[in-house]
Amino acid sequence: MIKQIGNITIKTTTSKKKIKDILSRDFGAYGIEGKVESVRQTKGPTVFTISDGTGTLECTGFIAPGKRAYPDINDGDMVAATIQVSKNNDKTRREIESVLKVSDSMKSALVERMAEALKNQASVDDIDFIVKSEKMERLKEKMKSCASAIKRAIVEGSPIYLRHHADVDGYTGALALEQVILKLISQYHAGENDAAYKYYNRTPSKAPFYEYADVIRDVAESSRAKKRFGQKAPLVLLVDNGSTAEDILSIRKAKIYGLKVAVIDHHNPGKVVDGKTGVDEFVDFHVNPYLVGADKNITAGMLAVETARILGEVKEPALLCALSGVGDHAKGVEFEQYLEKSGKTVDYLKKIALCVDFEAHYLRFMADSEVICDLMYGNEKLVDLLYDELSVKIEEQRQVCAHYMKEKVLKNGIVLATLDLDMTTRRGEFPQAGKTIGLAHEIVCEKNKGKVVVSVGFGSDFTTIRASADAEEKGFDVNKIVVSLKEKMPYSAAEGGGHEVAGSIKFVAGAKDEILKEFTDFVEGL
Amino acid sequence: MIKQIGNITIKTTTSKKKIKDILSRDFGAYGIEGKVESVRQTKGPTVFTISDGTGTLECTGFIAPGKRAYPDINDGDMVAATIQVSKNNDKTRREIESVLKVSDSMKSALVERMAEALKNQASVDDIDFIVKSEKMERLKEKMKSCASAIKRAIVEGSPIYLRHHADVDGYTGALALEQVILKLISQYHAGENDAAYKYYNRTPSKAPFYEYADVIRDVAESSRAKKRFGQKAPLVLLVDNGSTAEDILSIRKAKIYGLKVAVIDHHNPGKVVDGKTGVDEFVDFHVNPYLVGADKNITAGMLAVETARILGEVKEPALLCALSGVGDHAKGVEFEQYLEKSGKTVDYLKKIALCVDFEAHYLRFMADSEVICDLMYGNEKLVDLLYDELSVKIEEQRQVCAHYMKEKVLKNGIVLATLDLDMTTRRGEFPQAGKTIGLAHEIVCEKNKGKVVVSVGFGSDFTTIRASADAEEKGFDVNKIVVSLKEKMPYSAAEGGGHEVAGSIKFVAGAKDEILKEFTDFVEGL
Amino acid sequence: MIKQIGNITIKTTTSKKKIKDILSRDFGAYGIEGKVESVRQTKGPTVFTISDGTGTLECTGFIAPGKRAYPDINDGDMVAATIQVSKNNDKTRREIESVLKVSDSMKSALVERMAEALKNQASVDDIDFIVKSEKMERLKEKMKSCASAIKRAIVEGSPIYLRHHADVDGYTGALALEQVILKLISQYHAGENDAAYKYYNRTPSKAPFYEYADVIRDVAESSRAKKRFGQKAPLVLLVDNGSTAEDILSIRKAKIYGLKVAVIDHHNPGKVVDGKTGVDEFVDFHVNPYLVGADKNITAGMLAVETARILGEVKEPALLCALSGVGDHAKGVEFEQYLEKSGKTVDYLKKIALCVDFEAHYLRFMADSEVICDLMYGNEKLVDLLYDELSVKIEEQRQVCAHYMKEKVLKNGIVLATLDLDMTTRRGEFPQAGKTIGLAHEIVCEKNKGKVVVSVGFGSDFTTIRASADAEEKGFDVNKIVVSLKEKMPYSAAEGGGHEVAGSIKFVAGAKDEILKEFTDFVEGL
Repeated sequence: MIKQIGNITIKTTTSKKKIKDILSRDFGAYGIEGKVESVRQTKGPTVFTISDGTGTLECTGFIAPGKRAYPDINDGDMVAATIQVSKNNDKTRREIESVLKVSDSMKSALVERMAEALKNQASVDDIDFIVKSEKMERLKEKMKSCASAIKRAIVEGSPIYLRHHADVDGYTGALALEQVILKLISQYHAGENDAAYKYYNRTPSKAPFYEYADVIRDVAESSRAKKRFGQKAPLVLLVDNGSTAEDILSIRKAKIYGLKVAVIDHHNPGKVVDGKTGVDEFVDFHVNPYLVGADKNITAGMLAVETARILGEVKEPALLCALSGVGDHAKGVEFEQYLEKSGKTVDYLKKIALCVDFEAHYLRFMADSEVICDLMYGNEKLVDLLYDELSVKIEEQRQVCAHYMKEKVLKNGIVLATLDLDMTTRRGEFPQAGKTIGLAHEIVCEKNKGKVVVSVGFGSDFTTIRASADAEEKGFDVNKIVVSLKEKMPYSAAEGGGHEVAGSIKFVAGAKDEILKEFTDFVEGL
Repeated sequence: MIKQIGNITIKTTTSKKKIKDILSRDFGAYGIEGKVESVRQTKGPTVFTISDGTGTLECTGFIAPGKRAYPDINDGDMVAATIQVSKNNDKTRREIESVLKVSDSMKSALVERMAEALKNQASVDDIDFIVKSEKMERLKEKMKSCASAIKRAIVEGSPIYLRHHADVDGYTGALALEQVILKLISQYHAGENDAAYKYYNRTPSKAPFYEYADVIRDVAESSRAKKRFGQKAPLVLLVDNGSTAEDILSIRKAKIYGLKVAVIDHHNPGKVVDGKTGVDEFVDFHVNPYLVGADKNITAGMLAVETARILGEVKEPALLCALSGVGDHAKGVEFEQYLEKSGKTVDYLKKIALCVDFEAHYLRFMADSEVICDLMYGNEKLVDLLYDELSVKIEEQRQVCAHYMKEKVLKNGIVLATLDLDMTTRRGEFPQAGKTIGLAHEIVCEKNKGKVVVSVGFGSDFTTIRASADAEEKGFDVNKIVVSLKEKMPYSAAEGGGHEVAGSIKFVAGAKDEILKEFTDFVEGL
Repeated sequence: MIKQIGNITIKTTTSKKKIKDILSRDFGAYGIEGKVESVRQTKGPTVFTISDGTGTLECTGFIAPGKRAYPDINDGDMVAATIQVSKNNDKTRREIESVLKVSDSMKSALVERMAEALKNQASVDDIDFIVKSEKMERLKEKMKSCASAIKRAIVEGSPIYLRHHADVDGYTGALALEQVILKLISQYHAGENDAAYKYYNRTPSKAPFYEYADVIRDVAESSRAKKRFGQKAPLVLLVDNGSTAEDILSIRKAKIYGLKVAVIDHHNPGKVVDGKTGVDEFVDFHVNPYLVGADKNITAGMLAVETARILGEVKEPALLCALSGVGDHAKGVEFEQYLEKSGKTVDYLKKIALCVDFEAHYLRFMADSEVICDLMYGNEKLVDLLYDELSVKIEEQRQVCAHYMKEKVLKNGIVLATLDLDMTTRRGEFPQAGKTIGLAHEIVCEKNKGKVVVSVGFGSDFTTIRASADAEEKGFDVNKIVVSLKEKMPYSAAEGGGHEVAGSIKFVAGAKDEILKEFTDFVEGL
């Protein structure tokens, strides 16, 4: 091919390439074969999106401003094209020099080559986890499948909707995945305008499960993007959410509308039968320690960070894992190793975790990553500012707890602390109910070293519960209490759960006193 | 005219046409006359919007990218133009070949012709209602006027803001209208980018009236669209809302800012004098059964579906009407006929209605139509998923109601059931207060077959009321109770109303006990 | 330079100009020198933003649609360029004819000239205040600095985020500033698309301080705009907010992220030492009457209106100042003079203020200016509509207050009125808690002419307080009470404050009774 730029003559030869290999090129003419995913007319050129299983390419045809180029080439056509690539300083241009539909006889072979290529692209390499963990090794294949699904979505041009619990554990996992996802998108969608916005969005969720209001928004958004921009169905990636019975309705709805769902969670998913739990019937990918006989101490953050590492480099991964562990009070060899590799102390990480909690509280459903990353990676100015403020708030709330909390020793020696949260927290303000009962629990534990402690905060229609680790050994389990309440008081509409020693129960306000009595009896009966 | 496309020469003759007739053409050169509604410069061509009373046309002029074409042609000019129409596969292009202002002497004749044409375009044909109803016949002229106003808005290029009650009745009516409105927009604004977004938007409203917060948003939006895009004042179309005293403030505000308001509602609009009620002084169009001596049993959904049918084809209209009837507990010959024509059973429709209620609850003010349509038209997978979930929730809530409800027989034999809704529902969750008192009412009615039953749910500052149909015969009317409370307890700030046997009253919390006592006395005095 | 337009030849001579002087020109070729602030590739031409300290200019280079013009010219380059200006009816086009980087030897001189020019541009003239006020004169230099900062931001192309208290005082000040800011933006960014949206946004805030949730949004927005559009860090302008201890956390966070902060407020900023208070360590500009020994009676509205007048013409400034005074119950010579100059009566202004309060309540965080301006400037139709409605609502709420309020005479003769606001207001409805205690206070004052009156409204976890002016003389000060409560009841988490005789205190609900008792004791001890 010969091209004139000003008075310079450039000669290029066209070589047949995979799209993936062209994405990094700034110059030259290349032959590609693939499927036209969409055609979009702008006020300037016509934009064709072509994919071949190794990647997706936006390229342009131009006749006149706003005029449709190559009008016989449409969505879904299998084509062979020559693309002229050139670079203008900051932007790569990819112009179609020629494009033809492939003959019917060639089509099926091309389709097959593309499927094979996609499979290859989406394949991921093995990695060594940061820590030695026999339990995590048992999850590795599931993590690789999940990583592969993420990569496949990016190669194909399916958007990723990352949804995660808005706590420290959820944020560490989500932001580690965000790092590698954005990098892969910029690789596989190089040169596309706003690719990061088009192929990825993230939303934190206050509830520890995939709420129905969220799936409504996700289905609506995916259907709107499909109608308006011809976008593919998204992969919904749930982090620190997604494994429990409470998630099933939303996940099923997403599936009905053609969305894919992958889950990385460490909440107890209920009974495991043949390596499967309730949600496994519906989700496409599921990473959860309970599936392999491990438990919540391998946090969602740890699992998500390691899954992210399968896909690319994560900044200070051990720090993120250790932080997620501190956030969720994890214990065990995995946490110990992450902590050591992070080079930080538990006290330092607690400080960071408190700041992240505070920021997450006020961020609510906003998806700003910058400030949370600044906190996680220890931007000193910001951490100091928030921590100074928070120390005062926390100290104040500890005084509130100490003053209003009631403590009694049950017959079995367990110390039961109760705190009326409606009387001791303020709607919408930090520290909120969950954090407040955590503080109260700390105070009672400090005062009762060596004793088994159960702390229960309650509002008019809910309780939120913290118990010391030794309570779990005695058989304490929030989820069990919920089951028992449902049975004994079907008129209470009790539901909820969480981790064994940290969870919440909702009920109708009319049942409050009875529920608290049942709860006390349960604890006394341990 | 002669045009070269590649090596093909095409000869066309210019014929003078109405814009309406050009909208469906893909090819040719046409002369039009009309008014320039707006001129917009893009990075590519200049876009002129021209209307002639039969339709609105976007056409382009091009000199150089971003350069203003035909700089002497401006908003508001009356022009004669030749438009070259061509089609590029998926998109119709309309280029101005020539455009001239019409002479002053011709202008007034053109203005007159356009007004006449607009009147013709907006005229609607007669239809036969799906059902035989002497009452509905009396409303036909009003329905035709309202349909004509909708069509006129579309022909002129005024946007339509559809606002509706977020219940089954409101949704059936709104989504029937949406079907025909979107079709007309795609007809009359063929070839315009995003016409559906530009000329139409829909918002469900939780309150059963046009809230002040909504009119604030609508006025702000219309003023923004005017400033930024030169858009015309919208037609606000209120469905299953808009007829009562509570709507007047918002409607008046809309009118002050130049918005047009049309109402299709079946709430009791208060006293009818000379065929007019309170809102008639302000609204532009008003369809309400009470205006012609009928009542709420002709639902807003039925009226909106039939009005939509005047404008075009509606999918399964009888089903929608029957569904709206089931949603609002309608009785009477109209409902019976719709039910029969729908081919569905009441039980099936109740199931659908419950699913729509649930979805609407979580959709809140989101305007996604797809899922609601899928439910209404019986997407089996989705209905089954939701209904399975809901059956459990409803059964649970029935147990809550049965346990906490108090029931007593008044001196006059009326059974009065009371339920503290703060004690038996959870903020933001389904089933909410209104649905819960409905369930409680069902239970009491089942237990007291043949007796007159009044059920009153209350929270700290409101009651929501359901009464059996025979209570109405005895003179029970929520609206009357409100009037009486306002008089006897002016310090209670009582207000509200609704249908005779289903409504709500708000008051200040301090007045609760006194209000409930007054209410009981009222019922006992029937 | 010679230019051909059709068959017309135009000859222009290039003269070297400041950008400021070109902004108003429609025609000609001009040489400029400056810094390239950003380069943006559109589907059509390439857009360069160049600034020279006197202004900012968007100009275009064009080779082919979507093709990067002048690829060697980048962000941050110091350049000399020739710009061809032409006008197409409604739009000014500015095309780059030639552009070269300035030589290294010339660069530092240019940088210096630009800094000097910016200083000159941002300088503001002296004005005479509308009223004679020795106190306000003492604030003039601060007001000029603040005005200069606003102008400087506009000249440089930094966006202005105007945040203000959503009451009458806040709105009058903010909308006066908005008038001059939008005018300056249209001057200094003439010909830029959507400049008003790009360089300015305004948000009302319900809380009387810069909330943490707001700074989170502002930091996120500024970082997003920087990443996506290369936008500069904004100037956050706080009006009727920003001076108190409650603002410090948010202001410090904004500063960490590089935002500038200017405050125009009249809330008591706490102890003034050497002319400085707590926030002065962090804010860039601070206008507050307490800094110069004056007090809240010089309202934020008055200060903001006069500051706006330094920058340009404000419509009916005396009216706005008088209105702000009425809104905040200001007294003193300044208010008296503004009132006189406004030509309005206090009763008329109270009516307007009530309407603005109502509208602001329902607008919440929406930034629509039109309706509030219509009210402030007395659009009769709208004022009448709202006032008719409001008169009824207010009269009703007065009856509620009269009925439920409790009144007692303390030993020291002070009349103490208490009102349970949870029992007498409805969540989200107008009149809200603050307005309601205001009404109650009016009623008690009317009944107890000549006596010192303190009115305290309370909810489960807050009180809102109004006291007569003579209470302040006796030493009543909401801020003092807060200090005392914090000391005596550290477990109450009490915080808040406001003006001396009008403020609010929040606390945990468990402390309510004790707080009210302490409050009563405090008042009785005056």
